Amino acid sequence: MATGDDKQKTWQDVAAAKQAARDALIPDEWRLSKETLANLPKNVLDVPRQSGILTERELEITETTAPRLVEALVARKYTSVEVTTAFAKRAIIAQQLTNCLTEIFIEEGLAQAKAIDEEYAKTGKPKGPLHGLPISLKDCINVPGYDTTIGIVSFANKPKTEAEASELARILREAGAVFYVKTNVPTAMLAIETVNNVWGLTPNPYNTDYGSGGSSGGEGALLALRGAPLGVGTDIGGSIRVPAAVNGLYGLKAAGGRFISLGITAGLKGQESVKSTAGPMAPDLESLSLYSKVVIDAKPWELDPTTFPIPWRTIELPEKLAFGLIIDNGFVRPTPSVERVLRETKAALEAAGHKVIEYKPYDVEQANTLLLRLLGADGADGLYNLLRAGEYPEPWPPGFEVLEGIYNQYKDKPPKVGALWAAQADRNAYLRLLLKEWTNSKEVTGTGRPWDGVIAPTLPNPAHTHHKAFYSGYTNLWNVADFTGVTFPAGFSKSTDTKPADFTPRNDTEKKAWDDYNAEGLDGIPIGLQLLTTRHTEELGLKLTEVVVDALDKAK
Amino acid sequence: MATGDDKQKTWQDVAAAKQAARDALIPDEWRLSKETLANLPKNVLDVPRQSGILTERELEITETTAPRLVEALVARKYTSVEVTTAFAKRAIIAQQLTNCLTEIFIEEGLAQAKAIDEEYAKTGKPKGPLHGLPISLKDCINVPGYDTTIGIVSFANKPKTEAEASELARILREAGAVFYVKTNVPTAMLAIETVNNVWGLTPNPYNTDYGSGGSSGGEGALLALRGAPLGVGTDIGGSIRVPAAVNGLYGLKAAGGRFISLGITAGLKGQESVKSTAGPMAPDLESLSLYSKVVIDAKPWELDPTTFPIPWRTIELPEKLAFGLIIDNGFVRPTPSVERVLRETKAALEAAGHKVIEYKPYDVEQANTLLLRLLGADGADGLYNLLRAGEYPEPWPPGFEVLEGIYNQYKDKPPKVGALWAAQADRNAYLRLLLKEWTNSKEVTGTGRPWDGVIAPTLPNPAHTHHKAFYSGYTNLWNVADFTGVTFPAGFSKSTDTKPADFTPRNDTEKKAWDDYNAEGLDGIPIGLQLLTTRHTEELGLKLTEVVVDALDKAK
Repeated sequence: MATGDDKQKTWQDVAAAKQAARDALIPDEWRLSKETLANLPKNVLDVPRQSGILTERELEITETTAPRLVEALVARKYTSVEVTTAFAKRAIIAQQLTNCLTEIFIEEGLAQAKAIDEEYAKTGKPKGPLHGLPISLKDCINVPGYDTTIGIVSFANKPKTEAEASELARILREAGAVFYVKTNVPTAMLAIETVNNVWGLTPNPYNTDYGSGGSSGGEGALLALRGAPLGVGTDIGGSIRVPAAVNGLYGLKAAGGRFISLGITAGLKGQESVKSTAGPMAPDLESLSLYSKVVIDAKPWELDPTTFPIPWRTIELPEKLAFGLIIDNGFVRPTPSVERVLRETKAALEAAGHKVIEYKPYDVEQANTLLLRLLGADGADGLYNLLRAGEYPEPWPPGFEVLEGIYNQYKDKPPKVGALWAAQADRNAYLRLLLKEWTNSKEVTGTGRPWDGVIAPTLPNPAHTHHKAFYSGYTNLWNVADFTGVTFPAGFSKSTDTKPADFTPRNDTEKKAWDDYNAEGLDGIPIGLQLLTTRHTEELGLKLTEVVVDALDKAK
Repeated sequence: MATGDDKQKTWQDVAAAKQAARDALIPDEWRLSKETLANLPKNVLDVPRQSGILTERELEITETTAPRLVEALVARKYTSVEVTTAFAKRAIIAQQLTNCLTEIFIEEGLAQAKAIDEEYAKTGKPKGPLHGLPISLKDCINVPGYDTTIGIVSFANKPKTEAEASELARILREAGAVFYVKTNVPTAMLAIETVNNVWGLTPNPYNTDYGSGGSSGGEGALLALRGAPLGVGTDIGGSIRVPAAVNGLYGLKAAGGRFISLGITAGLKGQESVKSTAGPMAPDLESLSLYSKVVIDAKPWELDPTTFPIPWRTIELPEKLAFGLIIDNGFVRPTPSVERVLRETKAALEAAGHKVIEYKPYDVEQANTLLLRLLGADGADGLYNLLRAGEYPEPWPPGFEVLEGIYNQYKDKPPKVGALWAAQADRNAYLRLLLKEWTNSKEVTGTGRPWDGVIAPTLPNPAHTHHKAFYSGYTNLWNVADFTGVTFPAGFSKSTDTKPADFTPRNDTEKKAWDDYNAEGLDGIPIGLQLLTTRHTEELGLKLTEVVVDALDKAK
C-alpha cells in the first residue's frame, strides 16, 4: 500500500522519505559536528572515541565483549539502560560514518532495558543468559512495528505485525537481549556489497573507499565501530562471512535447519534449494558461542518446522588436529595479502603442532554455476516483480547485472520446474564428489579422521572498492554444500603485499578480482579467513576456530 | 536404448519380454503345481508351507526373525547358503502367488552367501551385524547389472552400472547382507496400490481380492509370505507405512536425511520439496532397529551430501508416557474395523498406565493439497515424458487420473518456479501451525513434555480392493511435515465390524473410501496403525512402538 501521501510518487521519493525519517531520529547531542564530518579520514574507526559524544565509561562499555558485558550486567556493574545507551550512541555515530542502519528504535530498546533493570532490582534474578545485552539485527529480521525493506523500495512503509515477528528475535529477547537498531543490506540480500535503492551504500569503516561486504554489511560496519557488541546476520552465499572478513569480525554461518528462520524476510521467498541461515557476528569469538547456545537451548525445533532437534553439544578436541587448507580454488587465486595471511595461518598451526594439508577443492566453478541456477531458477521473475514491477518501480541496483541478464533471457519463456529439479539433481551429484574428497582426506591426515576442518579464503581480495565486489566462489561453495563456516580475523592487508610481476590471470573473473587489488589502498584492511566443517557441526567449527586463533596469537 | 530386437515395438512387447525373462528364472522344482495354482484360496499365506517345496528346516528358517537368523548364522546353526536358499525358494513361491518380484538374481545371492560362509569358516570372524542375512530390495534401489524399471516401460533393459549402485545396498552388503530379489512398485512409486505397465499388479496375500498397498507393495506381499526376513522400502507419501499396514508388518519411515538415498532411483528426479526416504520393513519390530543401527553406524553422512551426521542413539523412556491419538482426521473417518483397533490400542495403553489423548490434527486436507502442489509442481511434465513420450509410450497407469489431469491442465502453460516457491512457503506456514499444535500439547499431557508420540490410522480402510486405493491423507501429512513414522500391526479386520447404519459421508473422498469397505470381505486382513514422532527421532519412534506393541500383547 502507498502511504496516501500524494507527493510520494517515485521510488526516489519513497527512499528520500525513509532516509529523512531515519535521520530525524538522531538526537542533536549525538550528531557529529559539521567539521568532523567534513574532515573524516578514510579510516573512521577512531571517530567514536574522539567525538566526545561517549563518556569514558561508555567507551569502556562499548569496547567490552558481549559475554563480559552480561557478567557485568548481572554483577550490577552496569545497568542495561546504561549499556544500551552507550551502544545506541555509538551506533548513531556509526550510522553517520557508514550509513549502516536502516530502522532505528532506540526508545523502544531503552524501555526494554529499563524493564529488565527494574525486574532485576525487584527479583534479583537475571532475565536470562543475555541479561540486558543490546544486540543489533540485520534488516531482514522482522521486528513488529518496523519495516523490513531489505533494500526494496516497494517494501517501505509496511511495518511488520506481531504475527510476522522473528521467532529468533523473540528467543533472544526472552534470554534478555535488547533491540535498538536494524542494519543495512544489499537489495534482497543478493550481493556481497551493501548498497540498495532505499538506503544507499555502506562503506567499510577501516577505509571508506572500500565496501563493508554483504549482504550483512550494515552489521559488519556497525560491529567494527562497536555500535553493538553482537549482531545477527544471514548467509546464503557468504553474507555473514564476507562482511565479517572485511570488517575484522567473527561470524558463524550455520548449516540449514540448525538455527531458526521463522519471521526472517527472505530475498527469494520460498526458495529452499540453497539454505539461507541466520547467525551471529561479533568482534570476538566467545560471543558467537554465547549466542549459539542461547538459540539452541530454546529448542527452536519446537517452533520452526525447518529446524532440526540437535542440542548444543560440548566438544572435546583431540590434541593433534589436521586441517585442510585451500589457498587457491583453481579459479580465482587469492590476492597477495590474502595468500600471505593463509600461509601465516598454516605456519602458526604447524608451530602449534597441528597438521595442515594444502588442497584444491573439487571443481568450485561448478558450485558457483549451480548456485546461480538454483537461486535464479525462476528466471529472476520474482525479483523483477519486486523491483521493476513493484509498487514503486526502481532500477536494478548496482551489481545485479547477472540477475538482470537472467531475467531478460527468460522473460518470454519462463524456466520450467523440471529445470530446477534437474539443477537440484546436478547439485547432489556434484556434492557427492565434493564430500567424497572430504571423506577421503582420511587417507592423508594421519589421524584416521577426515580433516577436522578446512581453512580457506573468505574472499580472494581483502575487500573491494565500491561496485567491484562480485566473486563469492570461496564462500558460496559451502552454501551449496550446506556446510558450517566460521570467519575469523587472521591478519591485515599490508602495502608491501604487492602483486607478483609475473602474475597472469587465468580468466576474466580472476582478472577483475586482481584488477581491484591495490596493496597501497588496502593497507590496514583486515583479512578474514573461514574455517569449514561439515553440516550441523557448529560447535565443532567454533571450537576449531579457537584453536586457530590461539595459534595465530602465539605466533605474533 | 532399444534392445535391437525388432519385435519389441510396443510397450506391451517390452513388458511381456521382461515378464517372460523373469519367469524363465524360476527353477522347475520351485514351481507350484498347476493344480495348486488353479485352486488357490483368497488367503495364500499357507501355500508356501503346504507346497512341499521347502523342507521343514527351510520352513523353520523362513519363519525366524532377522536378528535371530543372524545369531543362528554366527552360531553356525545355519549357513548363509542354506538361509538364502530357503528365502529364495519362498520368495519364488510368493512371486507365483502375488507377482511381488521384479528382478530376480538368486544365483548372485547364493554366490555372495557362499563367499560369506567360506570367509567365516576360514577366519572365524562374522562379516558384520547382518552376517549372511538375505534382504529383499524395493525395485527403486539400484543393483548393478539389473534394471531399475520402477514400473516404467522405457526404463526396461537399461541395467544399472556400478557407478549408479545404491550406497545403502553397499552398506548393507558390507554388514553381511545378501541380495537376491527386487520387489514390485506402482509406476514411479507414486501411488498406494502396486500396479504398473511393466509388471502388473501385486495383490494382498491375506486376500488376493485386495491390494498389497504401495508403493512398497511388492515388499509388503513378499515379507508377509516370509519370502524375506527383512526388506527395504521407500516412503514419500505413505509408501512404507501403507504396505506394512495392509500386510501385517512393521515399517519405519525415517525423516529426510537420516538414512542414505544415493543410488536409489526417484520417481520425480531432483524433486526435494517432499523428501522420499528409504527404510526397513519386516514381520517383527526388532529387525527395524537392527537395520537402522547398521545403516547409521556406517556414517552415511560421509558419503551422501543429503544425509545428516546423527549417530544411532540409545533411548531411555520415562515410565509414564503420553500419546496423542488421531481417530478421525476430520476429512476421512476411519472405517469401523480401523476405528475399533484404534480404540483397543488406546485401552491397552491406558491399561498399561499411559495417557492417551484424542485430538484432530490441524487442517489435514491442506497437507494433502500441499503434497499434490509440491509433487505436481512441474505440471506432471516429467512423468508425462517418461510414460507418454518415452521410448515406448505407455498409457497412464490405473490410479494416475489426478496426475494426468494436472498434466492436461498445464501442458500448454507450464507452471512457473515461482509457484513452487510459493507452495514451499505455504507448506512452511502450514507446518508452523501443525508444529505449534504438537508443541502446545505440553499443556494437556501432564508430563511437561509434548506428546511422546502420536498414534493414528495408516489408512482409513484396512485395505483396498483393486484400483480403489487413492486416499493417503493419514500418511502423507507426515511426509509433508518430514516427521518419523513407524507402522505396526495392531489387530485384524473382522466381519463383525459393520458400518454404522447412520453413517453419512462428509465428502466424496470419504464416500469413496467407505464404499470400498466391506466387513465380510475384509475379515482377517491385518490392520496397521502408525506412531508418529518429530523429525530425526527414529530411535524414539521404534522404542515407543515397542511400548505400544507390549501393551497390545498384554491386552490380548
